[in-house]
Amino acid sequence: MITAEIISVGTELLMGQILDTNAQYISQRLTEAGINLYFRATVGDNHDRLFHAIQTAASRADIVILTGGLGPTEDDLTKETAADVLGLDPDFVPDEESLERMLARFAQNRRIMTENNRKQVMFPKGAIILPNENGTAPGCILEKDGKAIILLPGPPREMRPMFDASVMPYLRKRGEGIFCSRVLRVYGLGESAVEDKLRPLIDTQTNPTIATYALTGETTIRVTARCQNKEEGSRLLEPTIQAIEELLGHVIYSSDGMPLEQVCANLLLQSKKTIAVAESCTGGLLASTLISVPGSSAFLMEGCVTYSNAAKMRRLGVQADTLATYGAVSKETALEMARGMRKSAGVDFALATTGIAGPDGGTAQKPIGLVYVGLAYAGGETVHEMHFVGDRNRIRELAVLEGLDMLRRHIQEIE
Amino acid sequence: MITAEIISVGTELLMGQILDTNAQYISQRLTEAGINLYFRATVGDNHDRLFHAIQTAASRADIVILTGGLGPTEDDLTKETAADVLGLDPDFVPDEESLERMLARFAQNRRIMTENNRKQVMFPKGAIILPNENGTAPGCILEKDGKAIILLPGPPREMRPMFDASVMPYLRKRGEGIFCSRVLRVYGLGESAVEDKLRPLIDTQTNPTIATYALTGETTIRVTARCQNKEEGSRLLEPTIQAIEELLGHVIYSSDGMPLEQVCANLLLQSKKTIAVAESCTGGLLASTLISVPGSSAFLMEGCVTYSNAAKMRRLGVQADTLATYGAVSKETALEMARGMRKSAGVDFALATTGIAGPDGGTAQKPIGLVYVGLAYAGGETVHEMHFVGDRNRIRELAVLEGLDMLRRHIQEIE
Repeated sequence: MITAEIISVGTELLMGQILDTNAQYISQRLTEAGINLYFRATVGDNHDRLFHAIQTAASRADIVILTGGLGPTEDDLTKETAADVLGLDPDFVPDEESLERMLARFAQNRRIMTENNRKQVMFPKGAIILPNENGTAPGCILEKDGKAIILLPGPPREMRPMFDASVMPYLRKRGEGIFCSRVLRVYGLGESAVEDKLRPLIDTQTNPTIATYALTGETTIRVTARCQNKEEGSRLLEPTIQAIEELLGHVIYSSDGMPLEQVCANLLLQSKKTIAVAESCTGGLLASTLISVPGSSAFLMEGCVTYSNAAKMRRLGVQADTLATYGAVSKETALEMARGMRKSAGVDFALATTGIAGPDGGTAQKPIGLVYVGLAYAGGETVHEMHFVGDRNRIRELAVLEGLDMLRRHIQEIE
Repeated sequence: MITAEIISVGTELLMGQILDTNAQYISQRLTEAGINLYFRATVGDNHDRLFHAIQTAASRADIVILTGGLGPTEDDLTKETAADVLGLDPDFVPDEESLERMLARFAQNRRIMTENNRKQVMFPKGAIILPNENGTAPGCILEKDGKAIILLPGPPREMRPMFDASVMPYLRKRGEGIFCSRVLRVYGLGESAVEDKLRPLIDTQTNPTIATYALTGETTIRVTARCQNKEEGSRLLEPTIQAIEELLGHVIYSSDGMPLEQVCANLLLQSKKTIAVAESCTGGLLASTLISVPGSSAFLMEGCVTYSNAAKMRRLGVQADTLATYGAVSKETALEMARGMRKSAGVDFALATTGIAGPDGGTAQKPIGLVYVGLAYAGGETVHEMHFVGDRNRIRELAVLEGLDMLRRHIQEIE
């Protein structure tokens, strides 16, 4: 199994001025190509430190992939430094095709090509040139003694197409086998509890492997198989995924990485049901989350953000008595909100949220994090009292997840 | 000048499953603290490779900052490996305060604490404990022979507050001189246009320096001064910030990094005005964005997500004629939505959005990205026709920004 390392080059990265999305993109592609990635590094536009970083990576890995530092300016020196590490001839030669492409580009943009742009189309002799369809700096692959150094431009909109068009085919040729993986998503069970339940599986599995990690309010489980092709991958993954489903049961809401709002959307579309939402503490986040799913206009009829008591009464018909007796944050109010929304919108389901998201407004009886989520449906209703921990926005996000999971469980008839 | 290195720990990073925003955040803070950062590394949850990475970083830098691998599971071994590198006693001791905090947390969540969670509150003797206000895993600082290894949790919402509350004071003590920076935020002018206008300033400035970068729909400008203390920092920053404000004018909505929704919230609170929102294509995102500001119940009275025509008529009194003649996505409908919302909610301002967010529903006359944003106020109303480019969620985010900026400009009486 061959190994690669990624080096992101640029002082602006070390200053935190830009987020390094290239490293993630390339990491995903390497996984697909079945190439091991053990290290990533980030280094500034400095010859000595860059030289040391490339040398270290090349001493450990078969392939070193660098992004950034191919520009026209003085401090763009990735190509020169990489050639230096491999001991290649420092007299670079122009790549005629790239030069023509660049001249045409400048002509098209009615810009004059400055001398320093020429630097971008000069390469070590024998370099494999990677055309840049979206910018002036071509990439290249430098090979020596079985090692390969791949140089790519920094801007993602130039790097990504170049990677897919030119680098992936090169990697696939060198990679042995591929990785196939599936993601299962869990709501209602923390990462450590999930790991406890899966411990026997995790400890005995070598291929596929099982890894858990935590997202806001949920746990995801990634099952990854090393295989020769997608078909073999599915054959390897299926039994493990079934075993996980048996161990965890209904807390798994998705076995293919699908987010909860998409799962709910599909359930509503399949059952041809409609929904409306009445939100106090989540304040539009529940509607917004459902609407982020394309085609949501087919099932989400409307929503109300009834932040004030007046709005709860006028829009949803919540009784003044209820608000006076039990308060706006109560089981009773949540249910009246859901009931009122379902009735006025004429939908199959209505979800309602009311709670205390903080940072103010908490009391001993009703602390910050107390949220009631109500669901009204034909012939019934249900309400959950939740005690969430976290800041204002986390509490709102958790309330949205709880509401969506209540809907999922109701439609799937899970108790 | 002391130097630091950052190591991001996690196999999920190397597999490209998550984007490493922590490294950028910490890089920015180190710059502010006046600490040099020459290398960043990413390594998986593997003892030997992690050991080697920490050892290499510690041999070059005074401070090594690690994120990730503090979780309860077996593959979380950052703490153990770091202690190993420093040659500390492998018999960890529990931090009682952290243990109590964790027990309270589980009690509040009504969840049972599993044994492996206890691992998170065990530390090498003499470790400086960094409390975690937003999760179960505290961080810590390990010191030996003038070197410091700082261990932080991986989830950004746990790491960032911990870094600001506990790590920054520690770094400031060790840093020589500091960086002070201010962020100006711009809506309505792209990054390259902003940079063009600021070019003379950027080229002549050495201290403070000026850096621009692009966010969704806006441009931010970071002005950074190297100085001995905050007072000197302000003295250095002020003239440059004024110069930028003169060059860019009203497209700057914030000169202190404040997001647009907070600017709008402050304007509404200062002027004691109230607002309600009627949303079609933004579907709750506008309300949700305003409600993300603490204390928003003082000015946001309510919101409606009127996705269907029926809801637009019933909730907002939009005329059937209007919908039939001009369509749901039209100037006229946007204005009737805003008018109707303002009237029924009895508020000073109402914002309304209607548009085509895609991926379906676009036509030659009304392409995807066409959005109308209406604002109704005492004695008047205004509507903007926007043509946004991007996917469904980007179009919705841009529509929200446009609505908030319309409100800002109206209250600030900017033409």
